[in-house]
Amino acid sequence: KVENCINRVKYDYKQYIECNHVSRGVWPLPQKLLSSRERYTLEPRTLYFVYGRESSAQEGCSVLDAAFKRYFSLIFPEYTAGRLYHEISFENKSFIVEVTVGHSDCDGYPKEDSPEKYKLNITDGQAFLNAETVWGYFVNKTYIKDFPRFQFRGLMLDTSRHYLPLRTIFKTLDAMAYNKFNVFHWHIVDDPSFPFQSLAFPDLSRKGAFHPMTHIYTQSDVRKVISYARMRGIRVLPEFDSPGHTKSWGQGQPDLLTPCYTGNTPTGSVGPVNPALPSTYKFMWALLKEVTSVFPDSYIHLGGDEVNFSCWKSNPDIRTFMQKMGFGTDFAKLEGFYIENIVNITSALNKTSIVWQEVFDNHIQVMVEVWKAGCYLCKVRKVTKARLRVILAAPWYLDQPHNWAHYYNVWPLAFKGTEEQKKLVIGGEACMWGEYVDASNLAPRLWPRASATAERLWSDENQTNSLDKAFPRLNEFRCRLLRRGIQAEPLSVGHCKYEYEGI
Amino acid sequence: KVENCINRVKYDYKQYIECNHVSRGVWPLPQKLLSSRERYTLEPRTLYFVYGRESSAQEGCSVLDAAFKRYFSLIFPEYTAGRLYHEISFENKSFIVEVTVGHSDCDGYPKEDSPEKYKLNITDGQAFLNAETVWGYFVNKTYIKDFPRFQFRGLMLDTSRHYLPLRTIFKTLDAMAYNKFNVFHWHIVDDPSFPFQSLAFPDLSRKGAFHPMTHIYTQSDVRKVISYARMRGIRVLPEFDSPGHTKSWGQGQPDLLTPCYTGNTPTGSVGPVNPALPSTYKFMWALLKEVTSVFPDSYIHLGGDEVNFSCWKSNPDIRTFMQKMGFGTDFAKLEGFYIENIVNITSALNKTSIVWQEVFDNHIQVMVEVWKAGCYLCKVRKVTKARLRVILAAPWYLDQPHNWAHYYNVWPLAFKGTEEQKKLVIGGEACMWGEYVDASNLAPRLWPRASATAERLWSDENQTNSLDKAFPRLNEFRCRLLRRGIQAEPLSVGHCKYEYEGI
Repeated sequence: KVENCINRVKYDYKQYIECNHVSRGVWPLPQKLLSSRERYTLEPRTLYFVYGRESSAQEGCSVLDAAFKRYFSLIFPEYTAGRLYHEISFENKSFIVEVTVGHSDCDGYPKEDSPEKYKLNITDGQAFLNAETVWGYFVNKTYIKDFPRFQFRGLMLDTSRHYLPLRTIFKTLDAMAYNKFNVFHWHIVDDPSFPFQSLAFPDLSRKGAFHPMTHIYTQSDVRKVISYARMRGIRVLPEFDSPGHTKSWGQGQPDLLTPCYTGNTPTGSVGPVNPALPSTYKFMWALLKEVTSVFPDSYIHLGGDEVNFSCWKSNPDIRTFMQKMGFGTDFAKLEGFYIENIVNITSALNKTSIVWQEVFDNHIQVMVEVWKAGCYLCKVRKVTKARLRVILAAPWYLDQPHNWAHYYNVWPLAFKGTEEQKKLVIGGEACMWGEYVDASNLAPRLWPRASATAERLWSDENQTNSLDKAFPRLNEFRCRLLRRGIQAEPLSVGHCKYEYEGI
Repeated sequence: KVENCINRVKYDYKQYIECNHVSRGVWPLPQKLLSSRERYTLEPRTLYFVYGRESSAQEGCSVLDAAFKRYFSLIFPEYTAGRLYHEISFENKSFIVEVTVGHSDCDGYPKEDSPEKYKLNITDGQAFLNAETVWGYFVNKTYIKDFPRFQFRGLMLDTSRHYLPLRTIFKTLDAMAYNKFNVFHWHIVDDPSFPFQSLAFPDLSRKGAFHPMTHIYTQSDVRKVISYARMRGIRVLPEFDSPGHTKSWGQGQPDLLTPCYTGNTPTGSVGPVNPALPSTYKFMWALLKEVTSVFPDSYIHLGGDEVNFSCWKSNPDIRTFMQKMGFGTDFAKLEGFYIENIVNITSALNKTSIVWQEVFDNHIQVMVEVWKAGCYLCKVRKVTKARLRVILAAPWYLDQPHNWAHYYNVWPLAFKGTEEQKKLVIGGEACMWGEYVDASNLAPRLWPRASATAERLWSDENQTNSLDKAFPRLNEFRCRLLRRGIQAEPLSVGHCKYEYEGI
């Protein structure tokens, strides 16, 4: 009676419907999924999550205890909200979900190489969920054997162009977990504002935030975000983008930015970080030391994108420095010099550096995030040829007004290269830049379009190469997101049983 | 000391800032606005709204009593929400807002010709608000003499492609009032679903709604919407679009739609309403009689757009009817015949008919809504030349992804025509079609982009012809919308003191 629903579904809508209790709404698609037509009733009074006898983690495991509670509420929202619920028991048998994990890492953080695979086996009155670590996820029915295609499945939020309240970040982390995203790339500061509260340099947020009291992230706020993410198996990757995109830094840190000149006269305006002053590196060392102590992840994003050379060119002190260093008039060398120094700092702090693609240079050991439109796979090929690891963002800019299919139709490994090169593509991420996005419209712009990226990064490419097959499943998943309180927008004409915030 | 802020503001940003307590955030711009730099403190313990001695309306006027309460809460949200509020009184003087209206129409509905002009005069400790009717609006500071440019300032919502919960409609009506929109055009039914509960034909929603119990508007729901709108000076204009866009009608009303044929064989699918059967007109009479008894407004929208002739052409009975009527093979004549019959029905029911532009015909007395892209002013010119009234929607399709400036940069009377022709342009409306919009994303897609349409329809064109001048004012107004609980999206990089739902 056990059938492989996915393999049976081949352009036959009616067969698909028969399978819909398993294949519709399961998103991202598991690597292997078998299902019977038998159904078991789940009731709030008789459903229990328990730890398996062989499990390394047992009662008291913070991550799993919290996940049990959370998913119980997600399965029975009416029951846990105290809304009218008739406790008619259809069967008196209890339904036990037994969870077994191989390694008990209950108090640690998810790491780049944390195994996320799991098996789920449901039979009458019982379900067995086996995962290597506590970072394996829970899904609610049938037999599943599952593991991620890519290790790095990120979503980037920009909290500088608009401030996002903690509530909004938490909601996003909820939805990320439902979508099996495992990295929250926090583009926390940029030109418009500096909301990160630094204890070493308190003026950075006092003078650089939109408002020094309300529009900031205190270190306690940051810890809350990291902890909330951890409970959901999500790493937090901070980005402190320099030497460009740093206007707001200059508000609270005198002499950090380069004074621009017209001829021999300062114009009063400033450019990128000043790479010619020793004080710059002293400051960056102290700031990054603080940052890496607040963010436990082993990666840090150093930015490095879109550096405009015109202000550096105008400044006589910079030009003198160029001569002294033997850079001639090649400002790319100056940029490289700056980045190399910053990367050396983060290496000394035991962190792996990620940079945007402009900074790619065969000689610096960094991870490269490819973001520019055009032939992005050409760039991926080039970077992997230089044996550097790649994160792909270019096809997943969610601030663009494309529909879900555009973000689904992406083949990250479709470039000519060796097996070694392909392995260097460690994943990708969906980017939501903040020019036109804040708490008022973030969620519907993210979901369910980011879900397209999520499936591409988690699932088997060969099982997920059809838009037609993905569409009804994504529609159903979007309704589930709504029911879970995620403000996900519709994909087309239709309705959900539970509309957003109810009828 | 009294200065005309608006006239002083000419490409001089610094002067503008000096005036910002009046001109920023006042939206749509009043026809005349004078302001002093003097400021008066408003405090919740000493602010009172009272009726002027000369006012025709006095205590007990439902519309104004409710508006006083509502706007008190909007001015002092912390106070009325019972949040911590230190009652430090700066002055013990009370501040009286005296409201005087000429006609007491407190229990009626806003009508197409209800005068909406008002004057607001604020001096020390006192404000006088004078309006002809209770449908004049309230704004909070300075001297204002104001009236609308156009009589018809509509916003269309589509509740067929997605169902919108009442809560979402109410929120939209709140925001409409803040934007001085005065017509809610309710595109209530269409192909995908028929959520309107008809007592005469209960099967229409039972079989034609997405769900017969949850995804419908009962007549009590409709009355609530009409009453909520009335309290805010907004008319409710229902649309029952036919003969096309009626797939959902066919679910609950057998024989209403035309059976399509291949040769002499019915295909099993159906087309537009069948115009050849007497039963069609009997049904439409009964339905429209019910509709016009539920909706008090003197207008009704009959649709008439996008009729596809192919199914009619395929049907032998329709072809026989064409011969009998002497229409030859001109199916536009058949369409005209149908519409003329429906317009006659609504005339007999004492309603003014509005139709989409396809139906425009010199001989039928209707109001024409121009919606097609391209040279829409050419069409406006043509229709007004035929002495018919026009509502302009073409440049304000908000389901398109244009920015606010696109919707602001519209000049509805910029066509060659006589003064009489221009007067026939009674207004316009913003349309939000529902393919990709439901409760999850309606508000941020509407606001503040619809505010651009609102100002174009209310304010003096000569005072509102600069995007640069409008931008900071609209930014400020968007923040006010947020503070009032409207989920309005950001226009660009920046922040609001009150972010959506708080920090």
